Amino acid sequence: MARAASLSGYLELLPQERIVEQHVLDTLRRVFEAHGFASIESRAVEPVEVLLGKGEIDKEVYGVSRIHDDAAEAKQALHFDLTVPFARYVTENAGHLAFPFRRYQIQKVWRGERPQAGRFREFTQADIDIVGDGELPVRSDVEIAVVMARALQALNIGDFTLRVNSRKLSEGFYRAIGIEDTAAVLRAVDKLEKVGEDRVAAEIAESAGATQAQAQQALALASIRTADPDVAAQVRALLGAEAVGETALLEEGLAELSLVMGELSTRVPGRAEADLSIARGLDYYTGTVIETVLHGHEELGSICSGGRYESLATKGKRAFPGVGLSIGVTRLLSRLLDAGELAASRTVPTAVYVALSSDEDWGAAQTVADQLRARGISAEVALSAEKFGKQIKYADRRGIPFVWFTHDDGAHEVKDIRSGEQTPADPAIWAPPAEDRTPQIISITDEPSTAEEL
Amino acid sequence: MARAASLSGYLELLPQERIVEQHVLDTLRRVFEAHGFASIESRAVEPVEVLLGKGEIDKEVYGVSRIHDDAAEAKQALHFDLTVPFARYVTENAGHLAFPFRRYQIQKVWRGERPQAGRFREFTQADIDIVGDGELPVRSDVEIAVVMARALQALNIGDFTLRVNSRKLSEGFYRAIGIEDTAAVLRAVDKLEKVGEDRVAAEIAESAGATQAQAQQALALASIRTADPDVAAQVRALLGAEAVGETALLEEGLAELSLVMGELSTRVPGRAEADLSIARGLDYYTGTVIETVLHGHEELGSICSGGRYESLATKGKRAFPGVGLSIGVTRLLSRLLDAGELAASRTVPTAVYVALSSDEDWGAAQTVADQLRARGISAEVALSAEKFGKQIKYADRRGIPFVWFTHDDGAHEVKDIRSGEQTPADPAIWAPPAEDRTPQIISITDEPSTAEEL
Repeated sequence: MARAASLSGYLELLPQERIVEQHVLDTLRRVFEAHGFASIESRAVEPVEVLLGKGEIDKEVYGVSRIHDDAAEAKQALHFDLTVPFARYVTENAGHLAFPFRRYQIQKVWRGERPQAGRFREFTQADIDIVGDGELPVRSDVEIAVVMARALQALNIGDFTLRVNSRKLSEGFYRAIGIEDTAAVLRAVDKLEKVGEDRVAAEIAESAGATQAQAQQALALASIRTADPDVAAQVRALLGAEAVGETALLEEGLAELSLVMGELSTRVPGRAEADLSIARGLDYYTGTVIETVLHGHEELGSICSGGRYESLATKGKRAFPGVGLSIGVTRLLSRLLDAGELAASRTVPTAVYVALSSDEDWGAAQTVADQLRARGISAEVALSAEKFGKQIKYADRRGIPFVWFTHDDGAHEVKDIRSGEQTPADPAIWAPPAEDRTPQIISITDEPSTAEEL
Repeated sequence: MARAASLSGYLELLPQERIVEQHVLDTLRRVFEAHGFASIESRAVEPVEVLLGKGEIDKEVYGVSRIHDDAAEAKQALHFDLTVPFARYVTENAGHLAFPFRRYQIQKVWRGERPQAGRFREFTQADIDIVGDGELPVRSDVEIAVVMARALQALNIGDFTLRVNSRKLSEGFYRAIGIEDTAAVLRAVDKLEKVGEDRVAAEIAESAGATQAQAQQALALASIRTADPDVAAQVRALLGAEAVGETALLEEGLAELSLVMGELSTRVPGRAEADLSIARGLDYYTGTVIETVLHGHEELGSICSGGRYESLATKGKRAFPGVGLSIGVTRLLSRLLDAGELAASRTVPTAVYVALSSDEDWGAAQTVADQLRARGISAEVALSAEKFGKQIKYADRRGIPFVWFTHDDGAHEVKDIRSGEQTPADPAIWAPPAEDRTPQIISITDEPSTAEEL
């Protein structure tokens, strides 16, 4: 990871690092599928107007056009997230899907970010979403959060907290205290961690036309952070008897957040807290919003974010409300690899390296390797009969645990490179210990590996 | 698959089709890793000059540039294959790799093809390559071919033949009969299946300055097709006593092809034949070249192609010779899905659908589902307590085999939707039959499934 990228902003992993990435992606897939989420992939390009019409319009989008074409203006561009393409996929294929539709999608996305440490122009996202036809119960918000909490838990990367809010609650509260331009307040509050309370208060006053008192109340709301599912009591206490605007949206938001927090405290205890400062920048969120902090890596920002959107996907009068969360895999992985908190025990899948006494033995050695492969043991055969010491060194350098020797009299022996122990073995029945079959993923967390847990 | 793509040339699969694709990619990965090949991924973009300097320069390459940039000229472009990026990766990371380096790479590539049936602008390739430092024995050509033959066999898509030739043999033969511009002859012979013998003979005469007799001899060489490892005898018979040019390269080619065919007939019997018409269009091949025909789908062209390249990857005076083969996964998959020769038994990973008697039971139903998930059984819970008939219909429509009911008295029952049989069950111990745990892949071939074989 200390290597300089030959193209700024593009990360390419070495084989050993890629094994860690494969483990991360396999683990996510396993958890998603255990919960009934189906995989889809969308094409990498979208019409430019689809990308610029929705979502983060200030993102730097990469246009794509044939190099021999004269047209300077690209009609298509690389997708910058998986939510907008998914909404397009759902409306296009609605007739072929059964709703509610649960899908996961693990793909690369591209953004023309200014290159800086830990920011990439090409990166992998892992998304889950549930989309309904016309309606979607708030229980799906709970389900999405539970599945992602379990997925992060299964990665065994340490303690994390899902920070949960409801846009209905925040906007309802702003209305209740008499602010009309609630979107402006949300945009200001979204910057709280970056610019601090004073500047947010000033922005609320300025852009939403709020009084100092209103701005302070909005900030007070954003300061509520609690694992207690009864967050409603604290919000009501803050509001007091001062409600000057309508409170219907606020009540809806309080009910939804209480339900979500109640279920989360039961199903993934200790993994979620209500945090009323969470706003999310994107316009399309309409209810539950979630960000996730990895303890000890707060500088990463949110490692898993998303929320509820009512009308991102529409087809005529038909709306497909959805809720989803997305893990920024590359950013997270790159940080954990850099910090030495995740590593693989070897650079190759190979468990057994079959050595050669002479080049003529290559066919016989392949037959030995095939006997191992037939039982699911990864094996490779030396391409040249170099000195045994050199063959062993080659295996050792790549972390392969066992080297196989076939002697001139046809006897077989297998050597554990780590201990140096060499024992007679029969290629038809010998197997390595279970933990040596595939590369081990080493995690710095002291918790026992939870890779097989949900 | 009968759906029209909303963007011409871009294929997007439905969830059920994607399950087949996942099965194909998982199978390839399993076979590649069993043989010790390590996974890498390269970034999707390369500097334009890297792509246009090597490989198929006439391919339509997609340029990439930030949409807000004025620069009309793209400096980067999407890769159109995985060989050129891999060569760049090897030279860049040579200091961190152990040679010979075996890698597999399964990624999307992009080509600005004219849209037509079965031709895609975005498609997935699955490549394996072995790269050496300075030298690489011809045994690695055998290894690559064996691994790919086994991978195709494991896909259970019917009978196929690897068509093997050596560029050294062809070029050596042309030299031996006195033709100097051997590259021109290769380019002409490469078109044999498309344009026929007469036009190829004319092109050889014209572009390589050959006599009619020389052109006919080159065509006679291209007509040799045999499963007999002793292909050398037929070539020598054809050459007769007429060698006017040097024969060293021919001898080298004959020796290599004989070795490769001999080993293949032992290790993957019936899967390979020498076919001296195989030329491959790409300039960088220098030795063994291979194409693969899937019987009954000859119109697909080659489903798996590649060969030996001596100097694609170089770093100063250091050369990294390699050999590789590539499967065009999307083209193959799309054809087999269209033909109904591969299909999945359901549209979701879910094995058990937990029904709801009332919305309030959702938490308890999730607890049942969690007991199943903890044992690796994919389960999902209804989001709403609709009528049981409707819940069963929803599960059935997606091919989920089992529906779970919890009665008011706490008793559990599980229903096999296919048979209608409903039996008492304990969520802590019940499991579906092994074949129902994951979606089944249905293949039209009558052969028993070889998914677990090497």
